[in-house]
Formats: sequence, C-alpha cells, structure tokens
Amino acid sequence: MTDNRDILITEVALRDGSHAIAHQYTVDQVLNVAKALSDANVPYIEVSHGDGLAGSSLQYGLSKTDEMKLIEAAVSVAGESKIAVLLLPGIGTLHELKEAANLGAKMARIATHVTEADVSAQHIAYAKELGMETVGFLMMSHMAPVDKIVEQAKLMESYGADTVYTVDSAGYLLPDQVRERIRALKQSVGVNVGFHGHNNLSLAMANTLAAIDEGANRIDGSVRCLGAGAGNTQTEVLIAVLERMGIQTGVDLYKMMDLAEEIVAPILHVPQEITRDSLTLGYAGVYSSFALHAKRAAEKFNVDSRDILIELGKRKVVGGQEDMIVDVAAEIAKARMK
Amino acid sequence: MTDNRDILITEVALRDGSHAIAHQYTVDQVLNVAKALSDANVPYIEVSHGDGLAGSSLQYGLSKTDEMKLIEAAVSVAGESKIAVLLLPGIGTLHELKEAANLGAKMARIATHVTEADVSAQHIAYAKELGMETVGFLMMSHMAPVDKIVEQAKLMESYGADTVYTVDSAGYLLPDQVRERIRALKQSVGVNVGFHGHNNLSLAMANTLAAIDEGANRIDGSVRCLGAGAGNTQTEVLIAVLERMGIQTGVDLYKMMDLAEEIVAPILHVPQEITRDSLTLGYAGVYSSFALHAKRAAEKFNVDSRDILIELGKRKVVGGQEDMIVDVAAEIAKARMK
Repeated sequence: MTDNRDILITEVALRDGSHAIAHQYTVDQVLNVAKALSDANVPYIEVSHGDGLAGSSLQYGLSKTDEMKLIEAAVSVAGESKIAVLLLPGIGTLHELKEAANLGAKMARIATHVTEADVSAQHIAYAKELGMETVGFLMMSHMAPVDKIVEQAKLMESYGADTVYTVDSAGYLLPDQVRERIRALKQSVGVNVGFHGHNNLSLAMANTLAAIDEGANRIDGSVRCLGAGAGNTQTEVLIAVLERMGIQTGVDLYKMMDLAEEIVAPILHVPQEITRDSLTLGYAGVYSSFALHAKRAAEKFNVDSRDILIELGKRKVVGGQEDMIVDVAAEIAKARMK
Repeated sequence: MTDNRDILITEVALRDGSHAIAHQYTVDQVLNVAKALSDANVPYIEVSHGDGLAGSSLQYGLSKTDEMKLIEAAVSVAGESKIAVLLLPGIGTLHELKEAANLGAKMARIATHVTEADVSAQHIAYAKELGMETVGFLMMSHMAPVDKIVEQAKLMESYGADTVYTVDSAGYLLPDQVRERIRALKQSVGVNVGFHGHNNLSLAMANTLAAIDEGANRIDGSVRCLGAGAGNTQTEVLIAVLERMGIQTGVDLYKMMDLAEEIVAPILHVPQEITRDSLTLGYAGVYSSFALHAKRAAEKFNVDSRDILIELGKRKVVGGQEDMIVDVAAEIAKARMK
C-alpha cells in the first residue's frame, strides 16, 4: 500500500450493494470481487447483509448465503485490504460482531439513526476491545440540524470511534448541505470525518467532492453504483475524478474499471439507474422501506404515493413509525375532497 | 406556460439521446415523447439526428426514420413547446435548416468545435432570417482556455446568436472548470448563456448546478439520461433538484418522472450507465468516435486502448485527425519496449 493517500476509500458494493441484488451474493462472487478490490489496492472492503450484520430476515430480506461465510471468503483474499462490517444496534448484536472479528474483520462500522448515537456506545467500545478500527455511522443525516449532528458525532467519538461519518442514506442532501455538515464536524471532532452518499438526486459525486473539499478523508463508494436506492458514489468514477484533481487514493484506476466491467456488472440483474422510485425517495428524503407501504396506502386511498412520501419526509417520519403512512394517505385523500 | 421561469430547459433526448439507441427513433416514439414533454411544459424539445441535421450516414450512423418526419411529428404535438434542431456546419446545410423551419422548428442550435465558431456565421444568420431563435453551441469546451471560449462566444453573438452554450461534449469538465467558463461568458457576452453536460464522470448534475450558480439560464437535460457517452444531465432529476433549491423551471416534476419511467425507459435497449468505455472517454476528454479506432489500434500494437485515448486527450486531438490514433499507439508500444 502507498502511504501518501489523501483519502481512504471504503468499498461498499459487498454490503450496501447487497440491496441491489436482493442479498443474493454467493461465496464465489464475493471471492472474485474482494480479490479484485484487493488487487486494486482498495484499503477497506465492507461485507455484511445490506442492513448490517444479522440483517438477513423476512423483514429486511433473506440472504442467499450466510454472511459469515461471505466475510470469511473476503478475508481469505483480502491481502493488504481490510474487511469492514456494518452493524446496526438492534439488528446486529455483540455476538455477531465477535464472530466477524474472529473471522478476520478489522473494522466495525456502527450505524445509528442520526439522532440516536447513544445506542452505539456498547458496540463501539466492544469493537475496540476486539482490536477493531471503529467507525460511527450517522444515518439519515439530512434529518437533523447541523448542531445535532455535531452533538451525536461527539458522542460517538467519546465512545471510541476512530472516524465519524455523515451518511446521506436517502440521497437527499444537496452539496451545500453536505458542506455545512462536514465543516461543522471538522471543527468539532478530533477524529477522522467521513461521507457516504447515495445517488438518488444524481448528486453522489458532487456531494462527495463537497465533503472532501471540507476535509472529509474517509469516503465510501460502490463499484458500478451497487447500493440501495439509486446506488452510491460510483467508486471507479470517483477514483478517476480524484486522479484528475490530484487527490491521492492509492487505488488503481484501470483495475477498478476492469473489475466494474468484467466482474461486478455481470452480477447485476438490472443496471443501476435513477428510476421514478429512487428519485422520489431522494426528493422526499425518506427510507426506501417506506416506498412499498406508500404504494399500498396510495392504492387504498386513491392518492399519488409520491404525495405521501413527500409528506412523510416533511414530517421527518423514521423507521418504526410506518403506521403514519396510512394516516398521511388518509389525510391527503380527505384534504382533496374538501 | 408560466412566465416566471428562472431557467429554460432544452430536452435533448430526441437528439443527443438518438446516440443511445443507434438513431433508431420511430415516428410513434417521437410523437409519444414530444407530446409528454409538451404536457410537462418543457419549453424546448430538440429533434435531429444525434450528430445534427443530415447526420444520417454510414459515418455517423444511419437513422431508422427520416429526421424531417420526426421533426414534423414532434411539431404536430408540441403545443406551447418549441421544437429545436441541431446543425453542425459541414454535416448539415442551409437546405436542411430551411426544411426544418418550414416544418415548424422554432430554434436553430448551430454547433461547432470550440475553436471554430467562425463556421457558424452563415447558419446563424440564415436561421435568424428564417425567424428562428438561435443558439451558438461550442462543443468540446474543455479543449480551449477560457479566453478562447469567450472570444468564440463573442463571434457567435456577433453573428446573431440569442444564446451561447458551453458544451461539455466529452463529459470531461470538473465543476470548477465549468464555473470559470460560465463566469467568463456572463462577464463578456450580452446574450443568454447555456450549459450542456455529459455524465461520463458522474458530474453532469454537479456541473449543471455550478453553471446555474454562475448565471447560466439555459440548460440542457435528457430524460432518463438518454445521450451520447454516459448520457446527459438527467432532466427529471434536474427538475427535482431545482425544485428543492427554489429555482423555477415551470416544468411539471411528476409528469417528467412518469414520462421517464413509462415512455422513455422502454425505448432504451440498454439502460444508461457509466461503463468502462464512457468513463474512459470522460477521463481522457476525447470524442466518443475515437473509442473504436483506439481499440483497433490497441489490438494491433498490443497496448491498452485507454493509454491511447488519454494520450490523444493530452494532445487535444480533434475529429478529422484519426490518423494520429495509430501513431500514438505505435509510440506507446515503442516506448514500452525501451
């Protein structure tokens, strides 16, 4: 590995990208992708169910392959690259974290809703005990004002996070909104600051460059855009753009391009595009899991599901509040009849 | 039409998007797309062969349908929207321009290489005579320094262009490069300034927002990203982003989303992605027509076609200089043997 990298990339196609293929990764696919990523000198490779360790379930989607087998496979070919795992407290537990560490995972990314960093304390501390590098991952970062994000990031830092991430889970943030978040974090925490973007508004690259410009030095990308919604910042494209800008990632551009074209593209059943559904989620700023509920409610009340999602976004409805979806649909139908 | 639009959008899916489907548009498809665009209140709809009027040829690709039939069809359903045509002097002639005007086309966009505005004089003047609104379209704008672009734009303004465009044909420009170009044009010309971006580096949206921030008020987009290379700024996504920013386009967001999903997506044989080839073109900053030549030369000399394209970009090789491609391949092969 080179040691003059300006930015350390975490490749998330084997975790976030799992959403794009309904969690159907096989051991062979993970071996091929992780090996090629390691050959291209990508420093961190995240491997887990799309919703983190232990995400495989009827609620979040069943994995085709036990994620521990996938982690083990990735570790076996990772070389100098480090395997990362994602864990959402409440879905994954300390048990899975330990199992992943025992298999050779070197980084634990503990993800919470942007206002709920306190639930990450135990997991971050335990990951440190296990000798892992730790990341605090503040999801749905558009849902909190800047000072709240700073407060939550400081909590994660106090628990032992080596890096705190602003995560634009819904692909909702505009570049200036990313700037103010990263700038505030850089001014307030002493650890690394990272950014994870989604492309629902075709702004993943713009937001990533804004984050880097403000001092973020940990960046997530997904090769060939494999990720939830419209996918993430496309890693091989990001490497090209950063090369053009003279920013060192240490990642081999040609190898990333070849991996994207020859190994990852054939895994995708449907190429990643910005569709009506993913655009709606990014515009509204809501969880992708709301989409299906909203469609059902829209049909029942004969309203446009987009109006429901936009209203849910305005009300900052979060996961667990799915009951609100039917209420909102009913209100829209009622208002229309007046 | 609303009259408080901040930005006037030109939809190019029926012209630039023609590249994405090998110029196979049918009259029915154009009728459906143009009607839906008009219903969504898009002010300008461009219809022509991908390489402009009279582009249908063995060299540039044969159109399935005579473009005049497509223009006529689009005009018949355009309502308040205006049909635009693109013309590259040297490919199209005054004859085709007149024919298009007679069919009801209301805007002529005269496109030249960024350093060759002088060849547009006659065509811009003639379009004015025909009563058309006129646009000077400076292609491959990354290939000239800012002062050269200003000089060329002023020429177009002097010929009668109502608008001058910075065109990032190769999808090569970075947002700061767009900023400096648009800023200089705004300071130097009295007419409207426009921007046309391509997404090869996943920066079409970022570049478009940079252009608008610097005062561009004419913007090109292509619904569902239909365009050469990795496609253009995705129109329906742009409308959503501008709504979020409080910038008025007068275009109906839901109708654009529905059109993209229900009418345009089914036309595409292969969804628009950023592939190895389109990324290479954007990274190198060369004409898409060089790609095939470079692959052939790469095979002959056993070198990587990307190295050839990057070197051609550095040397600012332009269309008509295809002989250089083999020379460059030979040089790379020779240098490697040393």
